[in-house]
Amino acid sequence: MQELNTSTVLNTMRDDVFDAIEKRDAVFLKTIINQLHPGELADLLESMPPKARSFFWENVPSELDADILAEVQDEVRATLITDMNHAEIISAAATMEVDDLAEVIEDLPGDMRSAVEDSLSESIREKLETNLSFEENTAGRLMSTDVVTIRPDVKLETVIRYLRRRGSLPEHTSGFFIIDREGRYLGKLTIEALVTHNDEELVEDVMQPDSHCLEATTTVHEVAQMFERYSLISAAVVDQGKLLGRITIDDVLDIIRDKADHALMRGVGLDESEDLFAPVSFSAKKRTIWLAINLVTAFLAAWVIGIFETTIDKIVALAILMPIVASMGGIAGSQTLTITIRGLSLNLITGPNIFWLARKEFAIGVINGFIWAIVIALLAWGWFGDIGIGLVIGTAIIINLIVAAISGIAIPLVLNRLGIDPAVSGAVVLTTVTDVVGFMSFLGLASIYLIN
Amino acid sequence: MQELNTSTVLNTMRDDVFDAIEKRDAVFLKTIINQLHPGELADLLESMPPKARSFFWENVPSELDADILAEVQDEVRATLITDMNHAEIISAAATMEVDDLAEVIEDLPGDMRSAVEDSLSESIREKLETNLSFEENTAGRLMSTDVVTIRPDVKLETVIRYLRRRGSLPEHTSGFFIIDREGRYLGKLTIEALVTHNDEELVEDVMQPDSHCLEATTTVHEVAQMFERYSLISAAVVDQGKLLGRITIDDVLDIIRDKADHALMRGVGLDESEDLFAPVSFSAKKRTIWLAINLVTAFLAAWVIGIFETTIDKIVALAILMPIVASMGGIAGSQTLTITIRGLSLNLITGPNIFWLARKEFAIGVINGFIWAIVIALLAWGWFGDIGIGLVIGTAIIINLIVAAISGIAIPLVLNRLGIDPAVSGAVVLTTVTDVVGFMSFLGLASIYLIN
Repeated sequence: MQELNTSTVLNTMRDDVFDAIEKRDAVFLKTIINQLHPGELADLLESMPPKARSFFWENVPSELDADILAEVQDEVRATLITDMNHAEIISAAATMEVDDLAEVIEDLPGDMRSAVEDSLSESIREKLETNLSFEENTAGRLMSTDVVTIRPDVKLETVIRYLRRRGSLPEHTSGFFIIDREGRYLGKLTIEALVTHNDEELVEDVMQPDSHCLEATTTVHEVAQMFERYSLISAAVVDQGKLLGRITIDDVLDIIRDKADHALMRGVGLDESEDLFAPVSFSAKKRTIWLAINLVTAFLAAWVIGIFETTIDKIVALAILMPIVASMGGIAGSQTLTITIRGLSLNLITGPNIFWLARKEFAIGVINGFIWAIVIALLAWGWFGDIGIGLVIGTAIIINLIVAAISGIAIPLVLNRLGIDPAVSGAVVLTTVTDVVGFMSFLGLASIYLIN
Repeated sequence: MQELNTSTVLNTMRDDVFDAIEKRDAVFLKTIINQLHPGELADLLESMPPKARSFFWENVPSELDADILAEVQDEVRATLITDMNHAEIISAAATMEVDDLAEVIEDLPGDMRSAVEDSLSESIREKLETNLSFEENTAGRLMSTDVVTIRPDVKLETVIRYLRRRGSLPEHTSGFFIIDREGRYLGKLTIEALVTHNDEELVEDVMQPDSHCLEATTTVHEVAQMFERYSLISAAVVDQGKLLGRITIDDVLDIIRDKADHALMRGVGLDESEDLFAPVSFSAKKRTIWLAINLVTAFLAAWVIGIFETTIDKIVALAILMPIVASMGGIAGSQTLTITIRGLSLNLITGPNIFWLARKEFAIGVINGFIWAIVIALLAWGWFGDIGIGLVIGTAIIINLIVAAISGIAIPLVLNRLGIDPAVSGAVVLTTVTDVVGFMSFLGLASIYLIN
């Protein structure tokens, strides 16, 4: 078997692809496309500006459409769908799994959506309706309905005969689900149990009760936590005891990645499914809202400075030094904030240990406050030759770093309690606090002690 | 089957656990521990302050030690190991899988490490050495050596008989690896193929070539990318064609979570495996370094302001408004920066599309620059009743937002080229640029146009 560095191969391939697109060389492009896996094609499409993406997508053979639409991120999928006509979408829908179909169909404009729904078989349409009857971001939406079910009162021999007749298994099958005549979920028959037991034994004697099955209403974040905690590969989804489908770990992988992207992107006012190559107007609009929010907080900080206008007018050194106080508080606070948000999202922070954590962060705030107060006081004293300025800035640093530590813990906890995602707005609230407290304490102390 | 909300159950359990620890009630604590899964115990240990963690760990039955040590994050594991004696560690090591053992053994102090190594069987020690011979964060380190291998020239019937005799399979087995007499990897026999084909057929006739096997030297990030791209559940690891072991998706889940934590935590100078409950002295030291770096950049910004001391002395409104220019640039820049870093980490940005992206971000910078320049100019004019100040701040905003957009793209690309992780230092460099350019352009324009 030959050694291959797949990333490098794929990067070379990408250069060829971009080259073929540049030259509008459809023949060569098709040759490359034929050698690639749908997952690779999805990655390529995500890395293309709009025009290149359209040209590439036109040249993808339509039998791959379904797999690719299931793989790409939401915003990119929306751009691909706009390039497809009714017939193409209907033919792609025909080969999609129900969970993927549920995701795609919600993106379609009304008339196209009903055309697709009409084209589906009765049984698929029913499954789709069940899927769509659950809220977004629940197990019921995420699950695949393509499962192998078995009755408890048959021999393993019979199961193997049935599987041979069936000829293929759903992707990532790691076991079979045992249900009774009413469709109630009884437990699972692992592949291990199937192949390692004597084939005269009955399913009910070798099956295992399933302690990790998921209610259809479980949120996807709880689903991800269960998969991580119990090292699951797949889990049954039930509603009132009845088996509806299963969730496999590759769906969970997507959730974990999305959640990570969410924390990163929402923190600067962006969407986790942001298409890197979205049109300028679309991206500019999204980002301008975040700038608007920030402007309000910036004017708040300016207003605080404005209160001390006469003080600054007398000692201009204050204007030079004041951003240092605000910025050190912002950095220290965002460290505590990040740790707290991560602790909350990993579910590590609850009642009994909040007090311990708050004490710890307070202690760190005091220690780092004093260390940097001394350093900055000496530097300021040296710069402006005024020990008073040194003492004032040192005191302001201590105050701001302690406030930053307390805010870094308190803000995410309060936002969480209010049902606001601290990963989205925590940083804005925090820096507003550290700016205001920083300017207020520094300029306030200066007004009291340096102006006579 | 009863509906259970596991998170709620676990939270209630946690309150009971903290209660039992508070009261030093070892008997009740042991009763609860006996009802929990190692994954749940690991989660609980991660959510405890040091003293509670020690007391809890003392009461965990030693037969669970191995599983828990394999589950908890690195820094927490180090605290658990310090509470164990030689005998306890040796007995835990005896039941660990080789990949977990490799991780744990590196955390041990020298004498304990050799004691553990001496206690291992010849064959395990050899596997451990192979594993440790690969660099950290490669497939060779991550792999498990516990695999079921099969020769190509046997009947499926024989395979099933062999599996029955074996009686159990390694966790998450989704197929079997076919090797020749020299140990060369030939392909895999999926469970689907095993159970759906006639048992008279030969392995070599139903086995599949494996196009997604991993070289032992592949980095874990490439491993994660391969698992995502090709929706893998497990993959063979080879070295010069010889089968060494396999990587399963649960290991990949940990990598993806770690990588996400890395981006979030390193961005504020923290470690992704930071123990939320580490001692104050330990945490304070780590964070103070980041504050030191920030102080240098803050003094740089102060120095820029200092250049314009006489200007500020004449128009104090400049001191009040200047943080607004710096802050708007910082926010706009960090949006572009976040998008670029994410694009780089998803491998979406390469040669041909960098130019397209740069043009897009530039356009957004220009659009948002003009919008907010007008708003801020009007507000400043209204506040200070001086149209000159409005014009100066508006122009400075346009300059800073355009510079922010260009920097947001250029900084991570340059850092990446230099081999520096942009997720770690990108934001510091960026805000230094937007602070300096913000203050420089605003105060500089004011010196030229407002002072006569």
